[in-house]
Amino acid sequence: MAVALPPSLSDTIVALSTPPGAGAIALVRLSGPNAIHLTDEVFAGKRLRDQPSHTLHVGTIRDGARIIDEVVVSLFRGPHSYTREDVVEISTHGSDYIVQELLGLLVRRGARLAEAGEFTKRAFLHGAFDLAQAEAVADLIAADSALSHQVAMRQMRGGFSQELKDLRGRLVQFAALLELELDFGEEDVEFADRTGLVRLLEEVQALVRRLLRSFELGNVIKHGVTTVIAGRPNAGKSTLLNALLNEERAIVSAIAGTTRDLIEDEVSLDGIRFRFVDTAGLRDTTDVVESIGVERTLKRVQQAALVIYLFDITTTTPTNLQVEIEALQLPVGIPLLAVGNKLDVASDTEQAAYYKRPDTVLIAASRGDGLDELREALLTRVRGEGLDRTGSSTIVTNVRHARSLEQAALHLEAVVQGLATGVGTELLAADLRHALATLGQITGEISNDDLLTSIFTQFCIGK
Amino acid sequence: MAVALPPSLSDTIVALSTPPGAGAIALVRLSGPNAIHLTDEVFAGKRLRDQPSHTLHVGTIRDGARIIDEVVVSLFRGPHSYTREDVVEISTHGSDYIVQELLGLLVRRGARLAEAGEFTKRAFLHGAFDLAQAEAVADLIAADSALSHQVAMRQMRGGFSQELKDLRGRLVQFAALLELELDFGEEDVEFADRTGLVRLLEEVQALVRRLLRSFELGNVIKHGVTTVIAGRPNAGKSTLLNALLNEERAIVSAIAGTTRDLIEDEVSLDGIRFRFVDTAGLRDTTDVVESIGVERTLKRVQQAALVIYLFDITTTTPTNLQVEIEALQLPVGIPLLAVGNKLDVASDTEQAAYYKRPDTVLIAASRGDGLDELREALLTRVRGEGLDRTGSSTIVTNVRHARSLEQAALHLEAVVQGLATGVGTELLAADLRHALATLGQITGEISNDDLLTSIFTQFCIGK
Repeated sequence: MAVALPPSLSDTIVALSTPPGAGAIALVRLSGPNAIHLTDEVFAGKRLRDQPSHTLHVGTIRDGARIIDEVVVSLFRGPHSYTREDVVEISTHGSDYIVQELLGLLVRRGARLAEAGEFTKRAFLHGAFDLAQAEAVADLIAADSALSHQVAMRQMRGGFSQELKDLRGRLVQFAALLELELDFGEEDVEFADRTGLVRLLEEVQALVRRLLRSFELGNVIKHGVTTVIAGRPNAGKSTLLNALLNEERAIVSAIAGTTRDLIEDEVSLDGIRFRFVDTAGLRDTTDVVESIGVERTLKRVQQAALVIYLFDITTTTPTNLQVEIEALQLPVGIPLLAVGNKLDVASDTEQAAYYKRPDTVLIAASRGDGLDELREALLTRVRGEGLDRTGSSTIVTNVRHARSLEQAALHLEAVVQGLATGVGTELLAADLRHALATLGQITGEISNDDLLTSIFTQFCIGK
Repeated sequence: MAVALPPSLSDTIVALSTPPGAGAIALVRLSGPNAIHLTDEVFAGKRLRDQPSHTLHVGTIRDGARIIDEVVVSLFRGPHSYTREDVVEISTHGSDYIVQELLGLLVRRGARLAEAGEFTKRAFLHGAFDLAQAEAVADLIAADSALSHQVAMRQMRGGFSQELKDLRGRLVQFAALLELELDFGEEDVEFADRTGLVRLLEEVQALVRRLLRSFELGNVIKHGVTTVIAGRPNAGKSTLLNALLNEERAIVSAIAGTTRDLIEDEVSLDGIRFRFVDTAGLRDTTDVVESIGVERTLKRVQQAALVIYLFDITTTTPTNLQVEIEALQLPVGIPLLAVGNKLDVASDTEQAAYYKRPDTVLIAASRGDGLDELREALLTRVRGEGLDRTGSSTIVTNVRHARSLEQAALHLEAVVQGLATGVGTELLAADLRHALATLGQITGEISNDDLLTSIFTQFCIGK
């Protein structure tokens, strides 16, 4: 580990570790040198400090004479715990009120409210696992499909870390030889076989490129796809949203301008989460509330991962469609899918015939016709080509890892160029060191406080 | 217990016991004769059947070769568990996906998904506590203020049950003496001292009446107060909602008819939860969407616990106000609070002077003026008079208990009337038996399957 244990590890931290809200049970977790002693002070039951690790104890939590709750306490003595410190989990009735009272009581007794991810951060600092594995814990919790679960579980159990470790290991060997050459200074020796290095670099570059390519899918697997449904008033956007969600989510009426607020909801297509956003119809309007809606729509379109432009084939000419789509001012890189609606009333028209093109999907939202084709088209846009969806190979899902890999690729390319143009060993060694450092940041072999803070604050509280 | 153990107790039940949603930890709970064996089948770690009660075990849950999660298992052997049966709690990463996979796996292995409240129902059937205590478990979970927590905790720990038990005990003694008189049939003896019985009945009636009176407050403590804000367009309803919630919850504009969907949110005033509902302004409108909104408003007003009628004092004459309030067709029993808005622009007008009356609160919602007075007026409407808010005496919060107490009161009154008019011992004894039976239903000394089902299905799943 490259970081010294910060003094904050001497604190005892506490947090609610189960989701907030009413339920049968809530778990409040303490970790730190004082976790057991502190619980003893408020727990009426057996004396916990006299109990062995991995045992359960029934009793009441009391604030003076007042009973906060009847609870079950789980006792884990360090290092045989998640954080490697003494850990106490208090299982209370699942009421926010009770949890707040209990947290307040423990804080008054000297515990500190844990920051987001602080339990996992402590586990990392105590060497329970590396940084990529720690990050996978958050991904595992957020996993909402077989695919994202599989990717996160593989990473948490060290699959990705192992692949990176192999990669780095092979480079380290060459780096060491280059450093050795530098030690011999003027003598112009070459311990590192340049041809072998070129071959290795090509292999490593190919692997880094594969990992980077996997990120496109990884990002979708992890975050889902925000899909904004835009179009002119009365194109049938709310009807389409309801059909895709299979419920009456938005108010539908024949009146143009019915939807003003953005209405959104999620549905999973083939393991990938789509967040569909219904929007106010795009038109010039004098209605103040409606025009606020139109403004919000345009803003939302800019932030979408994918845009469905829905149009009424009975009223939209190809020229108009072109103009309307251009008016969206869609940034480069956001794919747009043109979807023609109301095929049911216009199936035999010339217009319908024109729109039967590979880049357009035709539907009848009110009858559900064409929805399967639409879903398939959405999945195709998202998956991209050539990505092996079910393959067991590593998929990068973490934007930080992707950035590090991108940087590593640049440094590797510099080494390759250096070798080709015959730059000195010193420059080669420096670029290789940079490549190794950026790769090392992924697993936390190279880390610093800022990096750790930025990573663990993305966790939920209590983990 | 009046019920035999149903055959369903031979099942092993399973459910998620923590709130759904992403969090650090989720708990899946099993209870029943097969709980430990069943977990052993999917748990890679120590053999749980060989482990002692009240111990914790780390391992993985596997579905064949596939790892579902790394978990901690808590082992409770009956009768030393919540349900008095063998109980296993599996602590997983807090992901809905993992929980669903785990539940699916356990069900395929023979567990049955628990019905709402089934763990607590089993605890009751095994005699862990009485029915009023079991119901308090649900109340405790729902408790969201010091007040509701205190009332539920007292009831869960048997406070209310004890009070009822004392009550019944005293009546049972008299009932027994009356039954004895019946046994002697023709002999016209009086074992039960009629004067003593009258005195006791008066005492018991007073207690039952006190408990029934406490229910008015108990209901509010438990369920909160749905407060609908109604009024003409542009009266400032959305501004008032935002001010009461202290956030920009509803879109506010100068355009009459801005709000169409019902917008609602909660805030706690002095320990009592108010759910404020902002509504579409009430006016005749040709706008189809808006008129749907107006319809919904009128419907919601009928279901409110309290209605704020907000009016603009600069434009509303007292006569109009009268007419508008009557147009709400408010059912008897729903209190209405008239609130005049826009005091800031009309403080010196004649109109403002007229509305300075004890039955009207004047505010300037946009500046927050008068909000404290409004909150105080809301609390006064809700608390009623003469209810001891902080008293330590029992407060009935359960509608079932209130109904039973009402019935008991009727039967007790029949006994009192019977004594006064000198009816025969047989009728007296019958009425007293009925009174005892209805009181016994509260704690479950008298119960049946339908009653239990109706009670426990109101619990959350996993409790």
